[in-house]
Amino acid sequence: MENFDFRKTKTIENSRAHCGLIKTPHGIIETPNFIFCATRGAIKGATMEQMEATGAQCILGNTYHLGLQPGPDLIEKHGGLHRFMGWAGPILTDSGGFQIFSLGCGGVVDEIKGKRTCSIHPKSLVKVTEEGALFRSYVDGSHCWLTPEISVLIQQKLGADFILPLDECTPFHMQREQTALSMERSHRWEIRSMQQFSRTFEDRQRMYGIVQGGVYEDLRAASVDFVNDQPFFGQAIGGSLGGSREQMHDVVSMTMQRLAQDRPTHLLGIGGLQDILAGVEFGIDTFDCVHPTRIARHGCALVSQPENDKNREHINLKNRQYREDLNPIENDCDCYTCRNFTRAYIHHLFKAKETTGGLLLTIHNVRFMVRWMLKIRQAIQNDTWIQFVKTHKK
Amino acid sequence: MENFDFRKTKTIENSRAHCGLIKTPHGIIETPNFIFCATRGAIKGATMEQMEATGAQCILGNTYHLGLQPGPDLIEKHGGLHRFMGWAGPILTDSGGFQIFSLGCGGVVDEIKGKRTCSIHPKSLVKVTEEGALFRSYVDGSHCWLTPEISVLIQQKLGADFILPLDECTPFHMQREQTALSMERSHRWEIRSMQQFSRTFEDRQRMYGIVQGGVYEDLRAASVDFVNDQPFFGQAIGGSLGGSREQMHDVVSMTMQRLAQDRPTHLLGIGGLQDILAGVEFGIDTFDCVHPTRIARHGCALVSQPENDKNREHINLKNRQYREDLNPIENDCDCYTCRNFTRAYIHHLFKAKETTGGLLLTIHNVRFMVRWMLKIRQAIQNDTWIQFVKTHKK
Repeated sequence: MENFDFRKTKTIENSRAHCGLIKTPHGIIETPNFIFCATRGAIKGATMEQMEATGAQCILGNTYHLGLQPGPDLIEKHGGLHRFMGWAGPILTDSGGFQIFSLGCGGVVDEIKGKRTCSIHPKSLVKVTEEGALFRSYVDGSHCWLTPEISVLIQQKLGADFILPLDECTPFHMQREQTALSMERSHRWEIRSMQQFSRTFEDRQRMYGIVQGGVYEDLRAASVDFVNDQPFFGQAIGGSLGGSREQMHDVVSMTMQRLAQDRPTHLLGIGGLQDILAGVEFGIDTFDCVHPTRIARHGCALVSQPENDKNREHINLKNRQYREDLNPIENDCDCYTCRNFTRAYIHHLFKAKETTGGLLLTIHNVRFMVRWMLKIRQAIQNDTWIQFVKTHKK
Repeated sequence: MENFDFRKTKTIENSRAHCGLIKTPHGIIETPNFIFCATRGAIKGATMEQMEATGAQCILGNTYHLGLQPGPDLIEKHGGLHRFMGWAGPILTDSGGFQIFSLGCGGVVDEIKGKRTCSIHPKSLVKVTEEGALFRSYVDGSHCWLTPEISVLIQQKLGADFILPLDECTPFHMQREQTALSMERSHRWEIRSMQQFSRTFEDRQRMYGIVQGGVYEDLRAASVDFVNDQPFFGQAIGGSLGGSREQMHDVVSMTMQRLAQDRPTHLLGIGGLQDILAGVEFGIDTFDCVHPTRIARHGCALVSQPENDKNREHINLKNRQYREDLNPIENDCDCYTCRNFTRAYIHHLFKAKETTGGLLLTIHNVRFMVRWMLKIRQAIQNDTWIQFVKTHKK
């Protein structure tokens, strides 16, 4: 029996949408699925026991943050990240590249979505050379190198089921020529990552490749060809995805048309319901984003049908209109929060600055995402996918 | 069948320590027991589902805070506080008196423990008359009266199983004469509270009396006589308990010697392990305090045997010594946190400013208190109480 496997269990004519199973030593990920972010080794606003109860199947940990605090050696002493943070299911760790550039440039999250211009005064990034990235630790101010080899070694100590190679994350506003140079460097780093991974290989981990190339079709094509040629277990779409939802969908679409279809594909950092709908149609298997847990802490609940603004995907329970609303967040939701509490209660908790409000919304939002992905898988399995997209697309 | 009942199930020779059962329409409280504080309708750092899982049996809500935000009418519309905050077990609400004087004087919590002089510039208390207390709402700045009648009416809307009459909470540093006048006013307020409670009585609630009298033995005696003569279901010991642990124990001891023994007795605002041990010996049935959940948020875990300072009852996991400590908080603890996580992991979470650290410590501290009370009950039931006190008293 192989420790790892990927197979499609259902495909659809004239669509790349499919259901699949990703097998890992820590259990199976049914795809399409959503991966929740435990950046620093914890889901913000929920225990792992609560995560498990929602039906979540996979958690993402962050190499950069965990590498600095508490450090890979301490996590290794625990027997790895699974034991350290009390999550028995599959884990993916990213390489740390995104954070170095994000913290260096002041928000690549907005950057890859085209919302912000990169700061010209990096905050923690000292320099990037062919060797890797030199940055200042936010824990103790010391200078640290993150090279492709170091990132792999850290991730092997963390022991996630899936790991990613270090890449250079280029901002949306970068010109074509710079994006091309950066992409080529990322490819060289990916090769070095694979080499390091092979040297210290253990059969409890697999590596995903990362497709770069920004918003440029020819660069994305070149990067897809590179990734297709390497012996990665899976593949992730990284880098800038454009300045609008339309451009993001275009970039993902063109990338997916060329990308090998026999591997699981992850779309990095995307978690909007509509974006997931489009991504699944393009053939994406997994998504991750801090969005569901982040908006929970700010009083927002994911809903299928927002009453006020049909273009949104959530309601803000801090709004006065929910002060006396005796309904649950959603009538048909089976989460602990919706089974037991009213919108008025959650409104009150935020008004009273009780953090339990955020805890209850986190439970709802996580369960909402789990159910959203379940509905998507069911629609594909039941041959109602095309209808499902028509009904839910905005 | 009565909705409410109290009976002792085990008594001990030459000791007032006993086990008892308090029957309510929402279930039974086994005594001695600890009541956890959900001041604003939520336990800070845990959902009610998690509270239930720890074995907690009773929750305290706060009339003053809930009366201001979200207001008694909205809670009544929910069917009461049980439904509002999702707690199916017994609930006690205090009268709001403590908070008015606490917020007015800047910290009666420290005050009753003798740690702070009352500020001469009240923060929200406008005036106290025979009618009641006039204060400014911290929600909207409006002037609000809290009278004995209003407090009862609010508590009837909240619908807790046990309610308390409004009392004037006098600070430790108050002179005997003032304490006597205040006590007498509290008695008049307790009579008015009972009268209001009788007028609007529903068989789903019972009222506790409150013994005042500060640190003065003759005043405590007079207050006990007053409470003994009134038809309260139970009784609480309130007011200043002195400036030191010894004085507090003296005040509780002298009060308990005179207080009727056929009613359940609550000791307000006390939650130290040693104080509980002493209180149980004096015949106390229930205790409440924010201590276990508050120190959790600040990185502290209750433990039976602190390694460093034997006089403390907790360890601070933020301390550097726990950075690489692969042990659980306590080896013999059966809580979710101790079964799954190391001290090093919790240390890391606080270091990384992940609020999950506080959630995990809350679960541990609540379970710790539940088990502490369980051990106390078992010792009494098994006739090993005297030995138990010898072993655990510091």
